[in-house]
Amino acid sequence: MTRTSTLDPRSADASVDVTRVAVSTVIFTLRRLPGADAPRVALPLVRRTRDPHEGQWALPGGWLDVAEGLDAAASRTLAETTGLSPSYLEQLYAFGAVDRSPTRVVSIVYWALIRPDEASDDSVENVQWFDAASLPALAFDHNDIVEYALWRLRNKVGYSRIAHGLLADEFTLAELREVYESILDRRLDPANFRRQVENSGTLIPTDRFRTGSHRPARLYRYNQDVELADRGPLGVRQ
Amino acid sequence: MTRTSTLDPRSADASVDVTRVAVSTVIFTLRRLPGADAPRVALPLVRRTRDPHEGQWALPGGWLDVAEGLDAAASRTLAETTGLSPSYLEQLYAFGAVDRSPTRVVSIVYWALIRPDEASDDSVENVQWFDAASLPALAFDHNDIVEYALWRLRNKVGYSRIAHGLLADEFTLAELREVYESILDRRLDPANFRRQVENSGTLIPTDRFRTGSHRPARLYRYNQDVELADRGPLGVRQ
Repeated sequence: MTRTSTLDPRSADASVDVTRVAVSTVIFTLRRLPGADAPRVALPLVRRTRDPHEGQWALPGGWLDVAEGLDAAASRTLAETTGLSPSYLEQLYAFGAVDRSPTRVVSIVYWALIRPDEASDDSVENVQWFDAASLPALAFDHNDIVEYALWRLRNKVGYSRIAHGLLADEFTLAELREVYESILDRRLDPANFRRQVENSGTLIPTDRFRTGSHRPARLYRYNQDVELADRGPLGVRQ
Repeated sequence: MTRTSTLDPRSADASVDVTRVAVSTVIFTLRRLPGADAPRVALPLVRRTRDPHEGQWALPGGWLDVAEGLDAAASRTLAETTGLSPSYLEQLYAFGAVDRSPTRVVSIVYWALIRPDEASDDSVENVQWFDAASLPALAFDHNDIVEYALWRLRNKVGYSRIAHGLLADEFTLAELREVYESILDRRLDPANFRRQVENSGTLIPTDRFRTGSHRPARLYRYNQDVELADRGPLGVRQ
């Protein structure tokens, strides 16, 4: 059977020039690796079990179903591949370079932050957590995608309450600073940091304290009344 | 001919469940409407000449070609429909609700700012500029898309040099303030505004002055050395 030219992309011969839509998700958390003195930004990857790139690590994801919204597809494919169900996924970017896959695939990439206690170590087959700063060569353009997600994370931590996604509801200033230090990958001066967050009006001190091996430290929570860079109209609609 | 069930989305019968990818672009500029004392945020729309939504106004855009990157598709379809060629388009968001079109369409939406002198009034057939704050009912979910783009514009103007895209290379503080006022749709105190931008380190005063009916006003330019919220790794790669 010979191929005939086709002007209608939905005709029988369209398989040669179909663009398919996939979703993938970058899930960041903080992990304290053995021997390390500070937690590191980490993400789960899935080992591919078929071509292309069989055996390589890739972001969790899958194909968009024709009857499924983008957000729903991201949640579903993430749960199917890793068992993770973050309460909130945010769209990151659509990657659609022509040569990023042997067939034409546009990937809508989502991202989310989860607290360390949500990122269970329960071994899911073919899933492994990696230090975001030292990844192997991933399938497709997934190294580029992680690099972009890390840039957005570092960028966004400066003007939103995004660090909240990595912390419990109440936290000490030292715990908050540790989150910033891990994301920015550099040390911050404790006194300057305290002054900045106290001046920002985004934190509310509680009457409770963290006690333990150090002197008691006051617990804070985020002030939900402060309008920061959140999702805007999309947060309401979708 | 009866339809048979299909498991392979690329088989002959896949026309019933094909997802297609489109690109659309929101181009903002400032327009001084007759009789108005301040410029307004405006954008070009294209009147649809076929179904669905024939006769309604829509964002400029079109189908993604299978051999074309997303950025290239946005530039091409914008030029084809409006004749506009902004030097830089930024990806805004992928819209993919199942019911946003009679067939399943995922739209990758781009946005850009152009200076008023680039947004020529040359009449292109079926293209018209609209005040962003008072749009008619647009085709598809395009009102939602414009609303989201406006939110991003207002949000981003606070932490990036985005206002630059609406100004000449050199500008007075009053001209810069006018851009902020138009985007934020509220008046800003001139003295406070001056203090804030001077403290930000993002502007460099020149030795030149704008002269005219008012007293001479110093011209400023943006300090390109200040690293603000720009595009990050994608800016280099694509």
